[in-house]
Amino acid sequence: MTDAADAPGAESLAERVRDGDLALHELDDHADADTATAARRLVVDRETGTSLGTVGNYGFPAERAESNIENMIGTVQIPIGVAGPVEVNGGAASGEAYLPLATTEGALLASINRGCSVLSQAGGANARVLKSGMTRAPVFRVTDVIEAEALVSWVRDNVDRLTEAAESTTSHGELDDVTPYVVGNSVYIRFRYDTKDAMGMNMATIATEAACDVVESETGAELVALSGNLCTDKKPAAINAVEGRGRTVTADVTIPREVVVDRLHTTPDDVAELNTRKNLVGSAKAGGLGFNAHVANVVAAMFLATGQDEAQVVEGANAITTAEERDGDLYLSVSLASLEVGTVGGGTKLPTQAEALDILGIRGGGDPAGSNADALAEYTAVGALAGELSLLSALSSRHLSSAHAELGR
Amino acid sequence: MTDAADAPGAESLAERVRDGDLALHELDDHADADTATAARRLVVDRETGTSLGTVGNYGFPAERAESNIENMIGTVQIPIGVAGPVEVNGGAASGEAYLPLATTEGALLASINRGCSVLSQAGGANARVLKSGMTRAPVFRVTDVIEAEALVSWVRDNVDRLTEAAESTTSHGELDDVTPYVVGNSVYIRFRYDTKDAMGMNMATIATEAACDVVESETGAELVALSGNLCTDKKPAAINAVEGRGRTVTADVTIPREVVVDRLHTTPDDVAELNTRKNLVGSAKAGGLGFNAHVANVVAAMFLATGQDEAQVVEGANAITTAEERDGDLYLSVSLASLEVGTVGGGTKLPTQAEALDILGIRGGGDPAGSNADALAEYTAVGALAGELSLLSALSSRHLSSAHAELGR
Amino acid sequence: MTDAADAPGAESLAERVRDGDLALHELDDHADADTATAARRLVVDRETGTSLGTVGNYGFPAERAESNIENMIGTVQIPIGVAGPVEVNGGAASGEAYLPLATTEGALLASINRGCSVLSQAGGANARVLKSGMTRAPVFRVTDVIEAEALVSWVRDNVDRLTEAAESTTSHGELDDVTPYVVGNSVYIRFRYDTKDAMGMNMATIATEAACDVVESETGAELVALSGNLCTDKKPAAINAVEGRGRTVTADVTIPREVVVDRLHTTPDDVAELNTRKNLVGSAKAGGLGFNAHVANVVAAMFLATGQDEAQVVEGANAITTAEERDGDLYLSVSLASLEVGTVGGGTKLPTQAEALDILGIRGGGDPAGSNADALAEYTAVGALAGELSLLSALSSRHLSSAHAELGR
Amino acid sequence: MTDAADAPGAESLAERVRDGDLALHELDDHADADTATAARRLVVDRETGTSLGTVGNYGFPAERAESNIENMIGTVQIPIGVAGPVEVNGGAASGEAYLPLATTEGALLASINRGCSVLSQAGGANARVLKSGMTRAPVFRVTDVIEAEALVSWVRDNVDRLTEAAESTTSHGELDDVTPYVVGNSVYIRFRYDTKDAMGMNMATIATEAACDVVESETGAELVALSGNLCTDKKPAAINAVEGRGRTVTADVTIPREVVVDRLHTTPDDVAELNTRKNLVGSAKAGGLGFNAHVANVVAAMFLATGQDEAQVVEGANAITTAEERDGDLYLSVSLASLEVGTVGGGTKLPTQAEALDILGIRGGGDPAGSNADALAEYTAVGALAGELSLLSALSSRHLSSAHAELGR
Repeated sequence: MTDAADAPGAESLAERVRDGDLALHELDDHADADTATAARRLVVDRETGTSLGTVGNYGFPAERAESNIENMIGTVQIPIGVAGPVEVNGGAASGEAYLPLATTEGALLASINRGCSVLSQAGGANARVLKSGMTRAPVFRVTDVIEAEALVSWVRDNVDRLTEAAESTTSHGELDDVTPYVVGNSVYIRFRYDTKDAMGMNMATIATEAACDVVESETGAELVALSGNLCTDKKPAAINAVEGRGRTVTADVTIPREVVVDRLHTTPDDVAELNTRKNLVGSAKAGGLGFNAHVANVVAAMFLATGQDEAQVVEGANAITTAEERDGDLYLSVSLASLEVGTVGGGTKLPTQAEALDILGIRGGGDPAGSNADALAEYTAVGALAGELSLLSALSSRHLSSAHAELGR
Repeated sequence: MTDAADAPGAESLAERVRDGDLALHELDDHADADTATAARRLVVDRETGTSLGTVGNYGFPAERAESNIENMIGTVQIPIGVAGPVEVNGGAASGEAYLPLATTEGALLASINRGCSVLSQAGGANARVLKSGMTRAPVFRVTDVIEAEALVSWVRDNVDRLTEAAESTTSHGELDDVTPYVVGNSVYIRFRYDTKDAMGMNMATIATEAACDVVESETGAELVALSGNLCTDKKPAAINAVEGRGRTVTADVTIPREVVVDRLHTTPDDVAELNTRKNLVGSAKAGGLGFNAHVANVVAAMFLATGQDEAQVVEGANAITTAEERDGDLYLSVSLASLEVGTVGGGTKLPTQAEALDILGIRGGGDPAGSNADALAEYTAVGALAGELSLLSALSSRHLSSAHAELGR
Repeated sequence: MTDAADAPGAESLAERVRDGDLALHELDDHADADTATAARRLVVDRETGTSLGTVGNYGFPAERAESNIENMIGTVQIPIGVAGPVEVNGGAASGEAYLPLATTEGALLASINRGCSVLSQAGGANARVLKSGMTRAPVFRVTDVIEAEALVSWVRDNVDRLTEAAESTTSHGELDDVTPYVVGNSVYIRFRYDTKDAMGMNMATIATEAACDVVESETGAELVALSGNLCTDKKPAAINAVEGRGRTVTADVTIPREVVVDRLHTTPDDVAELNTRKNLVGSAKAGGLGFNAHVANVVAAMFLATGQDEAQVVEGANAITTAEERDGDLYLSVSLASLEVGTVGGGTKLPTQAEALDILGIRGGGDPAGSNADALAEYTAVGALAGELSLLSALSSRHLSSAHAELGR
Repeated sequence: MTDAADAPGAESLAERVRDGDLALHELDDHADADTATAARRLVVDRETGTSLGTVGNYGFPAERAESNIENMIGTVQIPIGVAGPVEVNGGAASGEAYLPLATTEGALLASINRGCSVLSQAGGANARVLKSGMTRAPVFRVTDVIEAEALVSWVRDNVDRLTEAAESTTSHGELDDVTPYVVGNSVYIRFRYDTKDAMGMNMATIATEAACDVVESETGAELVALSGNLCTDKKPAAINAVEGRGRTVTADVTIPREVVVDRLHTTPDDVAELNTRKNLVGSAKAGGLGFNAHVANVVAAMFLATGQDEAQVVEGANAITTAEERDGDLYLSVSLASLEVGTVGGGTKLPTQAEALDILGIRGGGDPAGSNADALAEYTAVGALAGELSLLSALSSRHLSSAHAELGR
C-alpha cells in the first residue's frame, strides 16, 4: 500500500537487519505488517540493487495477507479480465456469468471470450460436478506383509473409529471413504473427505492426523509421513486422473453446425478429427494424463483470479476433451478429473480475489454448504470448454485464415 | 491505478456497453487502456452487483499489460515475499540470492526460508541445467503407413530445409532437433529449439509453422494442427518427464549430519527412508509422474513472482527428489525434467514481475544469451530443494514436535 | 499326437482345402480333432514349404484343446523346469513348494532357483493376497453430462438390481463393486467380481452383459461396447496398478546379513541402494508402471506352465519391489498389483498345464472356493521375489564376480 | 521325449537327489539331458504326489533346450493354430501368409482368422517398421550434479570410444545412439543398438557392459547396475511407448464400406465411434499406455508360437489403435511402439518354434540382415490389426447378433 517513505520506522528496522540484529522474518514482531513489509523491501533493495517500487505499491493493508504469506515484501500484480457473459446450465451454477481470469499470456482471454460467446449462442453450456472429495494418504511402516494384512483388516473394521477421530477436528468436514493400499511393508491409507466450500487440504490433513493417532495407538503400525503421496497433492498422478480429487466436473455443449461454420470457420467433422488426432491420439503417444488442448490455461487463470492454490493447477490439467459430430452438429465436452477449488479459506479472503469471487456471486460459504465450491468448479469447467472450443477451432480453421488462429490463443 | 471515478469517460462508455452499443472487448478502441479498464469494471459491477475497488487499484498504467491480457478490469494482487538469502553454486547462477515467491498458502514461504537457511549452512546448493530446449509438435495426416514412412524419411533427409525455414522466423532461436513419431496415418514431428532467454513457446510455434509450410508444399502430408500434443504444453505427459522440455535442471546438496539433527530435528536415515516410502514408492503406487513432495509449490510461487506462465506449473511438477545417507550425512537432490522459464517476453515485462527478476539480477536477456533463463531455472531448482528439505524434515520430525511439522508447510 | 501319415483321411481333407472346397476352420466338421489338425498341417506344409513334424508330435488328443483354440495344427512345446523347493508362508499357500516355470530364456530358471534357495535359508517367504476381484467395464453413450449424472445416480441407486442380474448368470461369481466414471457423454461402469478359483474374465463378461441389459432397458443409456477399457484387460494401465485387478499380492522376506554376504556376495545396503536407483528412481524416470527388475519373467514362466492367459503378463508386470537394510539384515518385498490367475477354466485343463498345477497341489477348485487361485498368486509372488532377489544380487555383486552376474539371469 | 521308464538311470539319480546326495540342478552333470530331465520328474512326482506323464512326453531331445532352461522336467504343450492366409503389403514381409498363433484362449484364433479374411478381401494390410533398436541403460553413481554434468559432457564427447568398446563385443550389432539422463547423483546412459535379426537383449547387455568399463575407467562414475530400468525391459514404461524399443511397427488397412457391412455386420462410423470411446477415451481415463482392444493377445500368441520372450508381451501391449470413417470406408490402424522380436537366438531355435517361423518363411537370419525380424514384426502387427478389426466389429455389431460378439473373441 505504501512505499518505504510512507512507513515510518521501516528504514531503521532495515538497518537492524543489515546489522544482523534481526532476521527478515522477525520483522513482524517489531512493527505492523505494512512497516515490516516496507523494511524488507529496503533490505532487499539495498542488497540486490533493486527498486521494488511497484511491488510495494499494493492496494490493501498487509495484515490482510498475514495468514497467506511470510516475509512479505508487497504484492505481485497480475492483470485480470473477464470473459463472457456465458450462459451456464450447471448443477450449482446457473444463468449468465462473467468469468474472471488472471493471466499474463496475451490472446488467452480473447480466445476464451470468443468461446464463451459461441457457447451462449448455442444455448449455453451444461456443467455438473459428478464426484467430490479431498484426500490425504499417510504412509505407515509395518514389519512385513503379514502385519500389513492385519492393518488393512483393522482399518476396514474400524472405519467408525477413524471417522470419529477425524471428524472431531472439524465442524464441517465429513470423512467419506478410507482405502488402504499396501506396498511391501508400507501401508498407505487414503482418507477422502467432503470439505464443503473449502478446498480442504488443511482440513483433511488435520483430520487425518487425528485418525493416524488412533491407528498408531491401536496397532503396531508406525506413521512415517502424514502424506505418503497417494493423496496425491500437486504432482501429476494417475490416481487423481482416475479416481478424482477435489471436484470431478464435466462441461459440455452441442453447437449447431451453422454456428460452427459461421462463427468458428470450421466444421464439426474437422473439429472432431482434430480433437482425435491431437487430444486423444497425440496425448496417448505422449504418455500423458492430460487429453486436452489447454485446459490448464483456464484453470490457472481462474485459480489466480479467485485465490485458489496455484500449485494445484497440476491436478487441474488432468482433463479429457472429446469432440464428435452428432446429427451434423458439434458435441464438445471437457471432463476435469481433479479440480481442487474452494470459496472459503486460503487465498479467497484476499481483497482482489474476493472481488473476483463476487463477480461469480460465490464468495464464502454456499447454501447448501459446498454449493459455492461446486459452482466454482462448474464455472471453471465451462471456461475450459470455451477455451478448448476456441483453440481447437482456431487450429482447425488455420487454412482459411491464420488471423483466426492467432486469435485463438 | 484508478477507480472509476478517476477515469473520465468510463461511465459513459459503460453505458454504451450496457446499451449493447459496444462489446466489452471493443472498449480499447474507444479510450485509453485505463479508461477502458475502468469502464469494464463499471459494467461488471453493475451487472453482478460487485464492487471491484481493490481490483481497480493497481499500480501501473494499464497499457503496460496490453500484450498480456484482453478485457482487462484491473489486477489481482498476490502477496510476494522473499526466502533466503541462499548460497547457490550454479552453472549460470551463483552467490547469495533472495528468492522471490508469490503465494497465498500460509507457511509455505517460511518453510522454504528455513530450507534456504539450512542449505546455506551446508555450504550452499549446487544447481545445473543439464538439457535445454523448447518443443512444438504439429500433427500431419497422411494416407496410410506407407506414406507415413515416406514422410519420416523425407523429414530425416530434409532437416536442413526445415531448419532454414524455421530459423528464418527468428533472430535468436535455433532449431536443434526434429523427431518424427507415427501413429497410423498421423505423423507428429517434434521440433526442439534453443530459445535462449525466452521461454520460447511463441517463438517455437511461429518457427514450426514456417517449417510446416515446407512439409506441406513438398510432401503429400496435410497439417491437421500446429500442435499435436507431443510437444507437450501444459498437460502432464511422460514425454516431458523423460525427454525434458524447457530446462532440465537438478539441484543438490550434502548436509552434515549435525546440521540435520540440530536444525531439522531429524536424521539423514529418517529423511532417506521417508523420501523412499513417500516420494518414490508412494508416487509409484499412485501412478505418478511427480516423485517429490511439493516441488510445484515452489515452481508456482516463483513463476507467479517472476512473470512465468502459470499453466506451465504442470510440467514443472515433473520432478524427482532423492535422499540418501552418505557417510553419515544427508545427500538430497531434486531434478526437474521440464521447467519452462524465460527472462524476456510474456509476463516478465510487467512492472512487479520485472522487479522480482531484478531481485535475482536476471531481468531481460543474459550474457551469453540464455544464461539468465538458465539462472532462473537454477534458482527455482534450489528453491524447490529448500522446499523439499524443509517439508521432508518436518514430516520426519513430527514425533518430536508437531510445531515443526506445522512450520514445514 | 500324430504325424500326418498316422491320420487316415487327413490327406484327402487337405486336398479339399487346396481345392477351395473347404476352409481350414471347417475341417473340424468333417473329421475328428486329430485328423483335422493333421490335415491343416498338410495344407500349411504344402503352401509354405514347411515340415511341421515337431509341431504335430504332441502328447494328448487334440480334442482336449477344443475349447482352447481353433484351426489347431498341433502344439508348441516350451521347456518347463522347476525351481525350489522354496518355503512359503502364505495365506493360502504354505509349506515347501516346487515352482513350475516354462521359459525359453536361458539362466532364468537357475536364477530363480538360486533365489528360492536363499529364501528358504532365510526361513521362507511370506505371501498374502490383499485384494481380489475381476473387473469388466462397459461403456455407455448418453446425450450429455446431465444424462450422465442421472445415469450415475441411477447406478448408485440400483446396485441391487445390477447385482441380481449379474449374479443370475453365474453359480460361483459374486458382484462386489460397481463404480461409474464419466468422460463427456461416455459413461464407464466398472463391475468388480469375486470369481473364486477362476481367473474370471469370461464370467465377469457374461455377468456384466446381463447387467448392461438392465441398464439399457431402464435408462436412456446405450451400450457402445461391453468393454470400455477401464477394465483394463491386457493393456498397461494405471487403474490396475493403483486399484488392482485379479489378485493384489505381496511377498516379502527378511534375509540375515550373513546369508546375503555368503550366498549372494553382496550386502543389504548395496542391494537397497541398487533397488532404489534402478527399480524406484530408474523406473520413475522411465515413466513406468513397473518398479521392479524382472517380475514379468517369473509371471510369464509360471503363467505358461500353469495354463494362465499369457497376454495378462502385461498386468502381471505392474509390480513394485522394495529393498531396505533393517537392523543389518535385508528386507525385500515385491507387490504385484494385478495378477490375474485361476486354477479352473481356460488353459488350466490342458494336460501339461494341469500337471504343473498338480506340482503345486492346486489343480481345480479350492476349498474354500478361491483358495487355490489365491495360492497360485502367492506362489507366483514368491517366485517373483526369488527372481528379484537373485537378479538384484547378481547386479550388485558384479564387481566381485561377473560369473555370478551371469548366473543371475 | 520319454517317460521315466524309458530313461535308464533316471530312477537311481532321483534316489540320489532324494537322499540329498545331489541337487536337482546338478543332475545334468551326471547324465544326458533326457535322463536328467526324467530323474527330475521322478523327484517331483514323488515329493508332490504328481504324475508328470504329459509333461514328460515331449517331442525332441532335451539337449536341444539346454541353452533355454535349467532344471528341465519336460515341456508344456500349448495348442498352436494358424490364421489366414492374409495378404500382407509390408516393407520386409509380403504376399500371402499364414500366421502361427499359440494360445489357450478359446475363440481368439477364430477371431483373428475372421479378421485376416476381411483384411485380404480389402486387398491386404500394409505394414511398416518405422524405427528399430534394442536398448540397455546402465545406472552410474556420481558425487553430485556437478559430476553428473561432467559425465554427461564426457559421454557426448566420447561416443566414438563407447561405440568402439561396445561393438568390439559383437560381430553383428551396431551402436546407434547413446543418451544420458540425470536424476540427482544417478546418471543413466541409454544405449540403443541395431541388433539385426536378433531380439538383441543379450547382445545389447554384453556390448553395454564393455562400454561401461570404459566409462568407469575414464571417469569417476561408478556403475551401480548394468540395467537402470530406463532400458526398459519387461516393465510397462512410457519411455518405450514414446521412444520405441525393438521394432516400432504400424499396420493399417482401408476396408470398403460394403465389406464392413456385409462381413462384419457393422459400419465404419460405428467402429470409429467405438474405437474412440473404448480405445482412446477409455484408455485415457484408465491412465493407460495401451490404447487398443487386445493387441497383447496376438502378440502373446505369436510370441509363443515363434519362440519369442513371453515376458516382453508387456512392451508389445504398448499399442495404439485408430479407426476412422474415410470417404465412407473404414480406415483402421494399429501402431506397436515397442515390439521386441528376433528370428535367431533364444527360443527361436527350439524345434516347434522354428517350424512356426518356417510357416512365415523367416527362420534364422534374413537377407539383408534384420529383414527377417522386421518381417516378423510386420506379420505380428498385421495379426494385431486383424484381431482389433474382429473384436471391435464384434463389439460394435453386438445388438444385431450376440453370436458374432462371441465369435469375436
